[in-house]
Amino acid sequence: MSIILFSNDFDKVMAAFIIGNGALSMGKKASIFCTFWGLNILRKDYKVDVKKNFIEKMFGMMMPRGAKEITLSKLNMLGMGTKMMRGIMKKYNVYPPEELLKMFIQNGGKVIACSMTMNLMGIKREELIDGIEEGGVGTYLSFAEKSGINLFI
Amino acid sequence: MSIILFSNDFDKVMAAFIIGNGALSMGKKASIFCTFWGLNILRKDYKVDVKKNFIEKMFGMMMPRGAKEITLSKLNMLGMGTKMMRGIMKKYNVYPPEELLKMFIQNGGKVIACSMTMNLMGIKREELIDGIEEGGVGTYLSFAEKSGINLFI
Amino acid sequence: MSIILFSNDFDKVMAAFIIGNGALSMGKKASIFCTFWGLNILRKDYKVDVKKNFIEKMFGMMMPRGAKEITLSKLNMLGMGTKMMRGIMKKYNVYPPEELLKMFIQNGGKVIACSMTMNLMGIKREELIDGIEEGGVGTYLSFAEKSGINLFI
Repeated sequence: MSIILFSNDFDKVMAAFIIGNGALSMGKKASIFCTFWGLNILRKDYKVDVKKNFIEKMFGMMMPRGAKEITLSKLNMLGMGTKMMRGIMKKYNVYPPEELLKMFIQNGGKVIACSMTMNLMGIKREELIDGIEEGGVGTYLSFAEKSGINLFI
Repeated sequence: MSIILFSNDFDKVMAAFIIGNGALSMGKKASIFCTFWGLNILRKDYKVDVKKNFIEKMFGMMMPRGAKEITLSKLNMLGMGTKMMRGIMKKYNVYPPEELLKMFIQNGGKVIACSMTMNLMGIKREELIDGIEEGGVGTYLSFAEKSGINLFI
Repeated sequence: MSIILFSNDFDKVMAAFIIGNGALSMGKKASIFCTFWGLNILRKDYKVDVKKNFIEKMFGMMMPRGAKEITLSKLNMLGMGTKMMRGIMKKYNVYPPEELLKMFIQNGGKVIACSMTMNLMGIKREELIDGIEEGGVGTYLSFAEKSGINLFI
């Protein structure tokens, strides 16, 4: 199974990793290719000291730093909706996105950071979490052509 | 063919069910798994008397009740765009989403309501229309692995 | 490989055509089916003299005329974000969407304009660029069932 994670919306990231972890638990191979806004969930949740130009700094500041900062695509209501959703998830024992990501990596899922997007958004390798790889469209296509299920989220 | 319907945008729901009904008319099996906002199109269009806590009531009120209430993702213009689109569709004999959903079920398409989302959004089985099933990520994956075409909409 | 391009967001169109051109360069067949908002990237970038009713004129005016006018789904900032993104892309030799579309057609990729959407949005064949075809859901499904990779973007 192969997923392109394009979005950094809380709800879409949840969907991607619930499907990804589901596939792993059924004994399938799974890869999630994080591109454009989806790259943000792979950022460390603290500021890393790297050289950036003005535009790169600005983009970096305006985008969420890791899966803990992402918000719902609808009913976010200045963060209140996402907070409420996190509360309900706890009640029903549904893992939050940052945990689902960790589990996915620990259980052998492949997470690939899109190298082109890293350039365009000025995000450096040192700013991303461990346990992931870098790759381009060729990397994605080589996974996708071996996959029975391909999704763009 | 297997579709995850994540969105409740009028335009995306149209796309999902036009493809789904197209597949059925070509003699294929088709399933549509409604999750997150996509679950809303399966709600009955009237208030059902069920016990809900405050947050569940609030979420329920803020989300569309069934396919008749959904709106365009762009150019909605406070409902005017969607209304105009419905008018044009009538002129060109394109069925509206609530009809496409009915046809899909009648013609043997499988519609699955995501049980996890039902919990998270506090939507009870009695609030959903007839002719559908409940299921989780395992249900989805068992359909998807048998499908030649998989889409996330 | 077969993609449904539903969106006309700058970032999503980029993703679709980078994957599409990647597939072509690896010797695969690729088709991109442009529907709903995605149809707009196929519009000529100048006004074409065709008969339209009031609603068709209005829709036409409010939607981007070709791939040069599309904007980012996030951080657009009244066009400034998209302009900055185009600048960074130039620096890293990443082609803009209007070039990726041209390359895709020149390298043998199939681009299909959704005929139903053309009706609904009042877009006439003369308003669309050369080198593309018209088709409906049947056309899409006949491509998709022969494709190993299917995406909805």
